[in-house]
Amino acid sequence: MFRPKITVCDCTIRDGGLMNDSKFLLETVRAVYQGICSSGVQICELGYRNSKALFPPSDFGAWRFCDEEMLKRATDGIDKGWTKLAVMQDAHKALAEDVLPKADSVVDMIRVATYVKDVDKAIYLANNATDKGYLATMNIMAISHVLERELDEALQQIEEETKVAAVYIVDSFGALYSEDIDYLVHKFKRYLKTKEVGIHCHNQQQLAYANTIEAIIKDVNYLDGTLYGLGRAAGNCPLELLVGFLKNPKFNIVPLLDAIQRVVLPLRNEMEWGYTIPYMISGMLNLHPQEAMKLMSLPKDHPDRMDFVKFYARMADEPT
Amino acid sequence: MFRPKITVCDCTIRDGGLMNDSKFLLETVRAVYQGICSSGVQICELGYRNSKALFPPSDFGAWRFCDEEMLKRATDGIDKGWTKLAVMQDAHKALAEDVLPKADSVVDMIRVATYVKDVDKAIYLANNATDKGYLATMNIMAISHVLERELDEALQQIEEETKVAAVYIVDSFGALYSEDIDYLVHKFKRYLKTKEVGIHCHNQQQLAYANTIEAIIKDVNYLDGTLYGLGRAAGNCPLELLVGFLKNPKFNIVPLLDAIQRVVLPLRNEMEWGYTIPYMISGMLNLHPQEAMKLMSLPKDHPDRMDFVKFYARMADEPT
Repeated sequence: MFRPKITVCDCTIRDGGLMNDSKFLLETVRAVYQGICSSGVQICELGYRNSKALFPPSDFGAWRFCDEEMLKRATDGIDKGWTKLAVMQDAHKALAEDVLPKADSVVDMIRVATYVKDVDKAIYLANNATDKGYLATMNIMAISHVLERELDEALQQIEEETKVAAVYIVDSFGALYSEDIDYLVHKFKRYLKTKEVGIHCHNQQQLAYANTIEAIIKDVNYLDGTLYGLGRAAGNCPLELLVGFLKNPKFNIVPLLDAIQRVVLPLRNEMEWGYTIPYMISGMLNLHPQEAMKLMSLPKDHPDRMDFVKFYARMADEPT
Repeated sequence: MFRPKITVCDCTIRDGGLMNDSKFLLETVRAVYQGICSSGVQICELGYRNSKALFPPSDFGAWRFCDEEMLKRATDGIDKGWTKLAVMQDAHKALAEDVLPKADSVVDMIRVATYVKDVDKAIYLANNATDKGYLATMNIMAISHVLERELDEALQQIEEETKVAAVYIVDSFGALYSEDIDYLVHKFKRYLKTKEVGIHCHNQQQLAYANTIEAIIKDVNYLDGTLYGLGRAAGNCPLELLVGFLKNPKFNIVPLLDAIQRVVLPLRNEMEWGYTIPYMISGMLNLHPQEAMKLMSLPKDHPDRMDFVKFYARMADEPT
């Protein structure tokens, strides 16, 4: 019934950090980490290790940098079981020298996120990570805006020049349908003969979980999810749904439900993720959610905030 | 690109009425009807025509009965275009004599909803409708709890004994995955040689829209949706997503967005539909959402309302 090769990664704190500049309380991060480790989910990503020159620490929370000291405070005393601790580096916003040799770090895995145009930077960071003793994976962001020839070339390079365990299809704009997933998985598998394929979806069109299932059916083995879907804009594939679906007897949904009720749902008082009409419009039109996020951040009583007709006209560039 | 045979039905007021005992304001119903007619969606279902003996009018709103007089007030002065006006009759809770001859009614279509066990009652009501001059369709509810042999027999009967235009697969519990949709569509098509197949999904596992797309891919032509997914429990396939997907040049999403912002979203102050953990749990366990709805209806500060671990244990019948 279940496929033992399937490896699930929780990105709650990392992707959720795009909604609050990574300003999570330490106890929130600890509760998420504890829930993930207890659930048997194999990877827990606690944030970015990005450059402090590009992200001023005065403006961003600790989980944008994941200093070793903070990671120790987040994980100390928690039985990690078989769960690996991951951090993400943005290819164009992170430094190789911020990654210590593995022996000096609590991190197990470096996930490098890149646009296709930055693939050379991403390969450099991925090799920096594997050379220093870490597991590494790569996330190809904004895949729905990529020119196919450039994607083909990037995949060929990643296959030949890195030792990453998996390369993820990232539907940053929540724009893909099941047939697109099918198409991209086949392409990725054609190039990545020695690597696994992964999937990371956004929920602008309520398809994040369904597209993840579609990828599973097409033999994708690395899956990203977040608790209650917490993540940028409409959020991600809800981890609780994914774990319920996978039927892996080593997984346990109860610690996930516990973390959701204790620390994730209360965050809804501070940030609004999940399906809304502005996010739906940006997903349907295959646009970056930044304009929708701006609209959603207007005060509740601002007349534009609920004027979906006006927003749609502006996004679709149709006359009102 | 688009398939002209595809017929979309809006069930906002009808399915949403399961969340508020069909107590919608007249102006809400008029705004929904106007939006649907302007959008080019082919069918607009404004409620039930169920028995007043079984649903005391003191407890239920007008849209549980859809008297001709109320329907006239809901539709007068609105250009209906090609949109058909539908009402639903529950096979076990509605009376044939409540349906007037078509010449005396503003209704175009009667949709008969039935459990498999009540199929003979449903056939009687469907034939009553077609004999009186209406279009008719049939919805097979709670399909994820049906014994296959009984379903096969019911489909055979419907094929042989009725003139309904379509028979809908209804995933009342939001429990089906894409492979189940595929399986059921093939079964329905095997029996229903002279009828179209339809799909009506619930969103307990965030799969209502994805499963509707799966059905479209498998050549299902009758599709149900509701504005912003308004419907029982986690709600339905969001109509705005469906219309955006279908690319039918006769469809226009703008009137749907307008109705959502003006009259649907404000309803969230009175009722809570959409994805929540209790609904997710009931969908995942293939249960009727009634227990989850009871939990969701507790006061916001009730300790059980957010205790998902306890609710899961009770539903899964596992010791806490």
